[in-house]
Amino acid sequence: MVSRTEEGSAGSLTQLTEQLRQFAEEREWQQFHTPKNLAMALSGEVGELLAELQWLTPEQAAQVMTDPEAGARVRAEIGDVMIYLVRLADVLGIDLVTAATDKMADSARRYPVESARGSAAKARRS
Amino acid sequence: MVSRTEEGSAGSLTQLTEQLRQFAEEREWQQFHTPKNLAMALSGEVGELLAELQWLTPEQAAQVMTDPEAGARVRAEIGDVMIYLVRLADVLGIDLVTAATDKMADSARRYPVESARGSAAKARRS
Amino acid sequence: MVSRTEEGSAGSLTQLTEQLRQFAEEREWQQFHTPKNLAMALSGEVGELLAELQWLTPEQAAQVMTDPEAGARVRAEIGDVMIYLVRLADVLGIDLVTAATDKMADSARRYPVESARGSAAKARRS
Amino acid sequence: MVSRTEEGSAGSLTQLTEQLRQFAEEREWQQFHTPKNLAMALSGEVGELLAELQWLTPEQAAQVMTDPEAGARVRAEIGDVMIYLVRLADVLGIDLVTAATDKMADSARRYPVESARGSAAKARRS
Repeated sequence: MVSRTEEGSAGSLTQLTEQLRQFAEEREWQQFHTPKNLAMALSGEVGELLAELQWLTPEQAAQVMTDPEAGARVRAEIGDVMIYLVRLADVLGIDLVTAATDKMADSARRYPVESARGSAAKARRS
Repeated sequence: MVSRTEEGSAGSLTQLTEQLRQFAEEREWQQFHTPKNLAMALSGEVGELLAELQWLTPEQAAQVMTDPEAGARVRAEIGDVMIYLVRLADVLGIDLVTAATDKMADSARRYPVESARGSAAKARRS
Repeated sequence: MVSRTEEGSAGSLTQLTEQLRQFAEEREWQQFHTPKNLAMALSGEVGELLAELQWLTPEQAAQVMTDPEAGARVRAEIGDVMIYLVRLADVLGIDLVTAATDKMADSARRYPVESARGSAAKARRS
Repeated sequence: MVSRTEEGSAGSLTQLTEQLRQFAEEREWQQFHTPKNLAMALSGEVGELLAELQWLTPEQAAQVMTDPEAGARVRAEIGDVMIYLVRLADVLGIDLVTAATDKMADSARRYPVESARGSAAKARRS
């Protein structure tokens, strides 16, 4: 299972980055894909994702993927967010997984398991 | 190079997902990691990323990674955005790369290369 | 009460707009206060506001203003959001109250009281 | 001119707050208008506003209100942002103008005119 995923979807983060770069180049959209513009587009897509969840109760939101229509919309918005995050990281020359792993290691130092357990205050700045 | 990346950082999207899940479980933070809360946290981190770029000219933003201090801050914020996007997708049971690939295929149909070339209007809804 | 407010805080939206314009002019910040930059700053401040609420339960969030520290932070973030919204509207030549009133009138047509009552689906696009 | 505005649109911030409260009450939407939900809606509307500006050059964005179609969309999005900001402040019991004025006074102390003049670094955290 893990090895399938590593060779499959996980292996394709590199492919996705390449495909999105090619997608932009074919359409001569690199001129629009500046760091500021892509950051704005990322924020815009996150806004659309929030709009899908904003009026749901916590219980409804936890079940949103079981609703075929709402679930498909949430999945599409998450796809859009990922697209702009991958494009932005590519334009800036940042490796997404390494940047996230480094940040997680930093959080592990700041929030040791024993003292952070079950604490929303500590969860705030994870 | 590609094979190194596929086995290395790209292969680790699965690992990153697992590590972030374990990080939350060890600290009993799953109770806070609901879809709505994670979407809000994602939006909050994107806001911090925008704050790093907002007063820069387009030219300055294009060079931001060459500034050691600003570059490190941008990289850290991108890491935070990735962390919450991965967590949100994991909680919802969504594969990030597949969701993005599906959305890209949809955009390819809506914006054929010939008609979309160099057009900001078409870039709007990529 | 209403007349006090109309002459007092409400009357000062015009004053606030003027004061913020002067604040920027005195510091020669108009060069940074372009529509795109101000929209990014607005989004960044909304992100900081979300960060104050993201890990709270709905019940905790409803009581957040009774906590002196958290309440002061939320109030300060709301103040920041208002500052950038007023600046952005001023730079674009948009009257905030009129724009909101027009949008509310539009929503009133789309969501008649009888059919919209108590409906989250209708609340979605208010 | 100023007196017209002070008696007119500015005086109506109080009216707008009242009208939006009544709008929600008539539709029994107070149940959805919790602080977290309204903050998400605010963020979502800011995202839609960013989407209107994201692919424009700084020069195009500075002229966006001269385009009847794009200008109308930007104005409508700003109206939506204002609506949710007013609702959120009302639910939390915060006076928007006072909160912004207090924050501006704080910024005036942190960024004295002489030292802040023309500085993007100082503009960052206004």
